[in-house]
Amino acid sequence: PSDTEVRSKLIDLAVIGGDGIGPEVTAEALKVLAAVLPEDVKLETTEYKLGAEHWLATGEALSEETLERLKAHDAILFGAVGAAPGDKRIPSGLIERGMLLKLRFAFDHYVNLRPSKLWPGTTGPLRSRAERSPNDSGSGSSDAASTEPVIDFIVVREGTEGPYAGNGGTMRTGTDQEIATEVSVNTAYGIERVVRDAFERAKARPRRKLTLVHKNNVLVFAGHLWTRIFNAVATEYPEVTTDYMHVDAATIFLSTQPERFDVIVTDNLFGDILTDLAAAVTGGIGLAASGNVNPARTFPSMFEPVHGSAPDIAGTGKADPTAAILSAALLLAHLGHAEAAARIEAAVGADLIEREGAAARSTSEIGDAIRVRVAG
Amino acid sequence: PSDTEVRSKLIDLAVIGGDGIGPEVTAEALKVLAAVLPEDVKLETTEYKLGAEHWLATGEALSEETLERLKAHDAILFGAVGAAPGDKRIPSGLIERGMLLKLRFAFDHYVNLRPSKLWPGTTGPLRSRAERSPNDSGSGSSDAASTEPVIDFIVVREGTEGPYAGNGGTMRTGTDQEIATEVSVNTAYGIERVVRDAFERAKARPRRKLTLVHKNNVLVFAGHLWTRIFNAVATEYPEVTTDYMHVDAATIFLSTQPERFDVIVTDNLFGDILTDLAAAVTGGIGLAASGNVNPARTFPSMFEPVHGSAPDIAGTGKADPTAAILSAALLLAHLGHAEAAARIEAAVGADLIEREGAAARSTSEIGDAIRVRVAG
Ligand SMILES: CC(C)[C@H](C(=O)O)[C@@H](O)C(=O)O
Ligand SMILES: CC(C)[C@H](C(=O)O)[C@@H](O)C(=O)O
Repeated sequence: PSDTEVRSKLIDLAVIGGDGIGPEVTAEALKVLAAVLPEDVKLETTEYKLGAEHWLATGEALSEETLERLKAHDAILFGAVGAAPGDKRIPSGLIERGMLLKLRFAFDHYVNLRPSKLWPGTTGPLRSRAERSPNDSGSGSSDAASTEPVIDFIVVREGTEGPYAGNGGTMRTGTDQEIATEVSVNTAYGIERVVRDAFERAKARPRRKLTLVHKNNVLVFAGHLWTRIFNAVATEYPEVTTDYMHVDAATIFLSTQPERFDVIVTDNLFGDILTDLAAAVTGGIGLAASGNVNPARTFPSMFEPVHGSAPDIAGTGKADPTAAILSAALLLAHLGHAEAAARIEAAVGADLIEREGAAARSTSEIGDAIRVRVAG
Repeated sequence: PSDTEVRSKLIDLAVIGGDGIGPEVTAEALKVLAAVLPEDVKLETTEYKLGAEHWLATGEALSEETLERLKAHDAILFGAVGAAPGDKRIPSGLIERGMLLKLRFAFDHYVNLRPSKLWPGTTGPLRSRAERSPNDSGSGSSDAASTEPVIDFIVVREGTEGPYAGNGGTMRTGTDQEIATEVSVNTAYGIERVVRDAFERAKARPRRKLTLVHKNNVLVFAGHLWTRIFNAVATEYPEVTTDYMHVDAATIFLSTQPERFDVIVTDNLFGDILTDLAAAVTGGIGLAASGNVNPARTFPSMFEPVHGSAPDIAGTGKADPTAAILSAALLLAHLGHAEAAARIEAAVGADLIEREGAAARSTSEIGDAIRVRVAG
């Protein structure tokens, strides 16, 4: 079904705030959601307590029962999970694998969608193009801003297999002879569906460019399968320009010429790494939104900021809710409310321009400002 | 044995120029090597033809016989291998796995050493710190150069196991039901030796800081083994400050605050990805040197620029030989000629300052300029 067909008059949302700043930024996203929806659309929310704190209190990472209840919702708005880095009470990976990845796998979120753009009014850590290649910019007196290329790309990260499969183990555990394996599991089925999704997205964008990122010169088994399927599907999309890049080279281009990308499709682990880098070069993780999407709509999709729970700033009002708010926009688009989604994006854009040079605002001040804009 | 003990009056070098710009940059490195060595040290070189072109001509990627002959040398100076990206005659990975990785594995190059620094006189793609955080720099009129933090770190990348093991395969190959696996193999033995090496290097540096990079919240089997061994070895190095960072977060810090790193130790694949990014943020892949080191000296170590064979600019004189020249300095340091190595580094530093704003020079002009400096 298309996004428009699935639009309904009731949005039944599961909300998982999680740990640290998760609940704070989610609250702002909910404010904005409530304000942006048309009069005749009702928003119902159910809160679920999950995450490191919840596990410490109850021993539940994510029970089958909770999973069943979550299934009934239209979508999930997710904050962040994870304890403080030094917290020895929670084994590293327990919440990530036992809750977040369990959700992505159980609900078949095979498209992990991560848009990146350098918003007008913001500056990333990279020099402007004129500064970067002084020889290209003539006398240096030209207006850099007017010729600055646009950074605006999306990463379509596979979300249900690859090195994240959880397949592996240890032998002679805890001894000097320990061996630990991690098996990256890649299926033609799993690759083809995410590659097709990426081609569809590329086709719908003005530049119509799709880059496959892998490491097929070293990980030859998985890499050749990705490449074979990518090339096969490409024949069905003659209007999309394609290329291939090794993941190591991709980090160079992302950090020196991010404007060359339009859509990137890549595996679960490479996507994890590249999207943090992409967020960094486009103004920071505070703006990076994501959707864990099940395009077949067999289970609810889940929308979350790329950032973590940042326990060090939890409760201080310093967390930037923008990524969570933009994730809510992705959620609305997925549920067929494209216009409302666009209103959030526009409001964020306007707010970001106002932020430049202005005094820092608190989490809720930013949320309120964007809420007022979408309502107005 | 220490580097000083292994210093000898004869350096018997194997030289593998390889493909594309490989032979061009290697030739410049050899020029500089010949010029920098003290009168009483003799340099003998034997050229080996290997790489994509050689494979096309002979069918040899790297024979057992060639491997035997290479073993007899003191060290290997390596250029780059790889055909043009579009070249369909050579399966992706054939030369990489069959020659380059075969060498790293056969000669037990378990320390893949990759130093990164922002050289004085050069500018990376990142804004200066003052530009990056205007609120920290007061009025903005302060002299940014004088307060600019120093970017100077090394990555100690594991070189003989992990996802590079070559372990994996396919089932139902070529069909819609194909499954491809890649097994990351991690051993306590393999991890401990590279972690120890990294602690030794960190201990010898002024800042004495070591960061473990992994993804132990997702790749829990390998990640926990790395973490356990890292923490155990750390107890023997109380003078070294340690921390842990997920690989995705590491890309953010490398691209926004690279000055926070001193020594990084990480697995084979993460090291591959992070060192290309590190090269990019510190002035480009044209300056990134590396050593595939066997610290136990059971086999010759191999030194190579991080960059590839760049077939598009081969023969044009546009290749920058600096990374190959700096790799030769790493080679000399490994063979006990620390003073000669330092002379190359100083000459490169001086040359880089002269490059700023000057007209571009050819591969051999740069090589000659550095040769003259080290000789003088
Ligand atoms: C928290 C972690 C399991 C997660 C991932 O690795 O996918 C995060 O880094 C992300 O990118 O969403
Ligand atoms: C060419 C390739 C096999 C190699 C690697 O992945 O190690 C290269 O990228 C490197 O970093 O030396």
